[in-house]
Amino acid sequence: MIMQKWRAARRLLRYSPKSLFDTRSNPNSEHSISRSASGFAHCVDGEKYHPREFPPYIEHKKERSLWNTTERGLERTSRIQYRYFGSLASKIQRNPSFSTLNSDDINYFKSILGEKNVIEDEDTLLSANTDWMRKYKGSSKLLLQPRSTQEVSQVLKYCNSRRLAVVPQGGNTGLVGGSVPVFDEVIINVGSMNKIISFDQVSGVLVCEAGCILENLVSFLDNEGFIMPLDLGAKGSCQIGGNVSTNAGGLRLVRYGSLHGSVLGIEAVLANGDVLDMLGTLRKDNTGYDLKHLFIGSEGSLGIVTKVSILTPPKLSSVNIAFLACKRLFQLPAKRRLGEILSAFEFLDNESLNLVLNHLEGVRNPLPPSMHNFYVLIETTGSDESYDKEKLEAFLLRSMEAGLISDGVLAQDINQASSFWRIREGVAEALMKEGAVYKYDLSLPVEKLYNLVEEMRTRIDVSSLVVGKDRCGYVNPQGVPCRNNLNSNSAKVIGFGHLGDGNLHLNISTPQYNDMILAQIEPFVYEWTSKHRGSISAEHGLGLMKANEIFYSKSHETVQLMASIKKLMDPNGILNPYKVLPHSIISYS
Amino acid sequence: MIMQKWRAARRLLRYSPKSLFDTRSNPNSEHSISRSASGFAHCVDGEKYHPREFPPYIEHKKERSLWNTTERGLERTSRIQYRYFGSLASKIQRNPSFSTLNSDDINYFKSILGEKNVIEDEDTLLSANTDWMRKYKGSSKLLLQPRSTQEVSQVLKYCNSRRLAVVPQGGNTGLVGGSVPVFDEVIINVGSMNKIISFDQVSGVLVCEAGCILENLVSFLDNEGFIMPLDLGAKGSCQIGGNVSTNAGGLRLVRYGSLHGSVLGIEAVLANGDVLDMLGTLRKDNTGYDLKHLFIGSEGSLGIVTKVSILTPPKLSSVNIAFLACKRLFQLPAKRRLGEILSAFEFLDNESLNLVLNHLEGVRNPLPPSMHNFYVLIETTGSDESYDKEKLEAFLLRSMEAGLISDGVLAQDINQASSFWRIREGVAEALMKEGAVYKYDLSLPVEKLYNLVEEMRTRIDVSSLVVGKDRCGYVNPQGVPCRNNLNSNSAKVIGFGHLGDGNLHLNISTPQYNDMILAQIEPFVYEWTSKHRGSISAEHGLGLMKANEIFYSKSHETVQLMASIKKLMDPNGILNPYKVLPHSIISYS
Repeated sequence: MIMQKWRAARRLLRYSPKSLFDTRSNPNSEHSISRSASGFAHCVDGEKYHPREFPPYIEHKKERSLWNTTERGLERTSRIQYRYFGSLASKIQRNPSFSTLNSDDINYFKSILGEKNVIEDEDTLLSANTDWMRKYKGSSKLLLQPRSTQEVSQVLKYCNSRRLAVVPQGGNTGLVGGSVPVFDEVIINVGSMNKIISFDQVSGVLVCEAGCILENLVSFLDNEGFIMPLDLGAKGSCQIGGNVSTNAGGLRLVRYGSLHGSVLGIEAVLANGDVLDMLGTLRKDNTGYDLKHLFIGSEGSLGIVTKVSILTPPKLSSVNIAFLACKRLFQLPAKRRLGEILSAFEFLDNESLNLVLNHLEGVRNPLPPSMHNFYVLIETTGSDESYDKEKLEAFLLRSMEAGLISDGVLAQDINQASSFWRIREGVAEALMKEGAVYKYDLSLPVEKLYNLVEEMRTRIDVSSLVVGKDRCGYVNPQGVPCRNNLNSNSAKVIGFGHLGDGNLHLNISTPQYNDMILAQIEPFVYEWTSKHRGSISAEHGLGLMKANEIFYSKSHETVQLMASIKKLMDPNGILNPYKVLPHSIISYS
Repeated sequence: MIMQKWRAARRLLRYSPKSLFDTRSNPNSEHSISRSASGFAHCVDGEKYHPREFPPYIEHKKERSLWNTTERGLERTSRIQYRYFGSLASKIQRNPSFSTLNSDDINYFKSILGEKNVIEDEDTLLSANTDWMRKYKGSSKLLLQPRSTQEVSQVLKYCNSRRLAVVPQGGNTGLVGGSVPVFDEVIINVGSMNKIISFDQVSGVLVCEAGCILENLVSFLDNEGFIMPLDLGAKGSCQIGGNVSTNAGGLRLVRYGSLHGSVLGIEAVLANGDVLDMLGTLRKDNTGYDLKHLFIGSEGSLGIVTKVSILTPPKLSSVNIAFLACKRLFQLPAKRRLGEILSAFEFLDNESLNLVLNHLEGVRNPLPPSMHNFYVLIETTGSDESYDKEKLEAFLLRSMEAGLISDGVLAQDINQASSFWRIREGVAEALMKEGAVYKYDLSLPVEKLYNLVEEMRTRIDVSSLVVGKDRCGYVNPQGVPCRNNLNSNSAKVIGFGHLGDGNLHLNISTPQYNDMILAQIEPFVYEWTSKHRGSISAEHGLGLMKANEIFYSKSHETVQLMASIKKLMDPNGILNPYKVLPHSIISYS
């Protein structure tokens, strides 16, 4: 039957590969925003998703509309219940060595940047102080918008001499509280530095300023016949400087690797205002320590990235998508057999599929009704449609014969391809409709990846039963009183994610947020991840949220060296304070 | 005509892809050793080539035969004229803060490592003090062979407290004097730490000790159906710890990128003996600064790499090779059109081809006799032979129609494939038969890459004429007296290399070494490279040879930060002193 489908699919496959590709990276897919009937957007899981609309990139290009759109976003999401983690900030002491902003400071900044780029407007500051998820809120009184590396340098030199703490900010699309102030840090937004400096058609090397919005770069490259090696749901707002500073992962990592591989050079400004020109455009350069890597993923705590040089892959014309059912998750040799054309290797479990089918309108299971453990979405992208498709079919046939695939179907047209992606992308949206969701984004060895879901399922079941017995009088070992009743059917534990990258999105859904459930999940989820040498942050970074959890993934000696490097490069600690490194290890002078 | 050839080739192509692939990576190819009729090996240009034989890897496995083979190598190459750059060391002052080894030190090392791993034998030390090229020679009195990370840690802790300088050494295959002592530094060779720790068939992640010889890893992976993402001529001797420490490039970089992308984790020991466990096996891990990158390419000056975790690609079965003639070098869109299957993209100029045809026996031009500017070798590697070949043919046809290819032929069998590689690989060997060769390994923007060859050609021509007029009485601006006569026909300037990586091998061949010619080449070649934002060291590192030339490729601020990080991580400067960073910027306390 499966072969008949594939043959049929092959005969009928007449869609435009370009459109197909575009569909996947559409901001209105799961990997970005899913709109509910009520007209405002939900934040969805996994990558950097955002509870506000992405304006078309052209808007960004014409005027720097970051703050306007943020304001719009705040209006539209006003009915969403959100909670600031004020308690987190209250546990942190403001670094007493930092100065407080005065009028002389503001006058100085105006003299450098001009009046209009020194912003004290309350509404604008409210947006800039608040993260996308509306979990974190600072109380900065000043937003600076430099237009050049030289201006960033002058600002930082001054702030350093005055011991004024700063928060570097790009699209403010982070999910871990890394891009907003904790207290009254000065916000430095590089969004005005948004020029493309050069593009080399031969090497595919793009050089641009840090404030370029990812989608603008995608659009620019599309005309040149190239693509960005990273693709994020937040691409309508996130900026390349922020992408580099947070080592953003995203959808294409399985194919093009991390930014440590594709970023060829950067320019960065240090805390003291020194400009590091490391804006090389070469694939090979072994002249001294490769310091650009210190800035990739350090979340603006070592310097502000002002320019980026990045290797972009050629755009390929042929895209094929298969939706498969499997008994076992990790034995499908897609990376081995399709290595050179594989461009997505995603999975969801049976519970995820049921959620999508139950909650999302118009979604159908493309396979005949039957119980399967896992569903896998495989996408190939190559330069020759017919050869690539035949290669994929041969792989699927072999996997089916080996019993690794129970059933499957190849997209026959663009609508079918979109419907396959809609299932994978719809999981997070469907979860939102269940109630409260505890979300974890973890890297794990791929063969152990799903074990955590199963263990968590058992654990939450047992926990729910205990709570069910004990009702609200129960106090868990962490001393957190139980607030809500819960029965064994009310918690759902599901797993989906990027199989090709060993990146699990573990989600626990309950009717309401419940501290008892949270205590059952954490620190267990971090401990389990640590025990299996996984990472507690696959792609979001540590920010404020997980700065103190770093030891689950990094050794004490390694963190100590990180702290020494931070101290070396930013002796006054003015750059993005209270983030990334644990508060216990950072000493304030 | 070309199409007829391709069609004919296609019908006849019946070789074993595996054997074909193996041929290319055979240590007896240009990318490693070419034996002359006299029975000893020549050092050849480009990658890490070595003037001694590579013993079969099995020998290494059974006993740590590094020193034995080195001794053999020294015997066999005794007739080669070589010159130690003793003058270089004499310009450097021995760091007066370093202690001198005494008998207590040696007794301490014996108590930790056992008698047989503390080596004072003169012959062995002569080998370990001398680099592969026999250009650099130290005067160390002690070689230590730790067998575990713990032992490396104990040794370094002691050396740091005693201020005994050390040189980390792996296969001692470097070409820039980085792996041998300058004065009396203690040599720490990690070759005894050569265990494979784990391999994951699902993720392709290999974890091993630093002393594993690259070829042993290649062989191990071959049985598992995987390959190493790097391939070097020195693979029979070089060790993965050294590869990582020098960020070795090699033949597969165009396909699999640099080690910054494929190394997932390392374990390293710092100067003070602290062990940094960063041996992650995850593709995604955004928890703090990614410090492993500091150790990739820092040439052992920040710590000794003791374990490595590396992502290995699946071995693919289909290999195709084309030999083409082109008018213009950089406009052939091989990376765009063959991106996902391209595995080699090499070039040589007409002068290079003539050298090979004139000097090497049995080499024939596969194209009809005609004058072409450039020759390009394209290799594809994929998972499906017929599809890959058709894709390559389609690309070649299109390129021919666009006038980018003047002529070309596809390998019809393994012999023809080998003969194509023999041409590209034979350039360096042919050069050796011309006389003295000045070799430069440069990264340049690909569109400017060949301009340097042309400018150098004009420059050397003019220079030769000047020398011809003035004879031996002439003194050049650098104050170097002319030693040899030279006429305008005696110098050849040729260019070949890795087109896909923008890596030019610029070679100037003259009958004898001549300081006047050298003064015409340097610093011009570095200045030109710097002016075009190239790198003066594409893949060899800086070592002792180019430590003072770093400013040609890196800014003062960047080098200053490198020096600060060196000072932070190795405050006594004991790790591989006098290397990588310029002597002017390193202060001795």
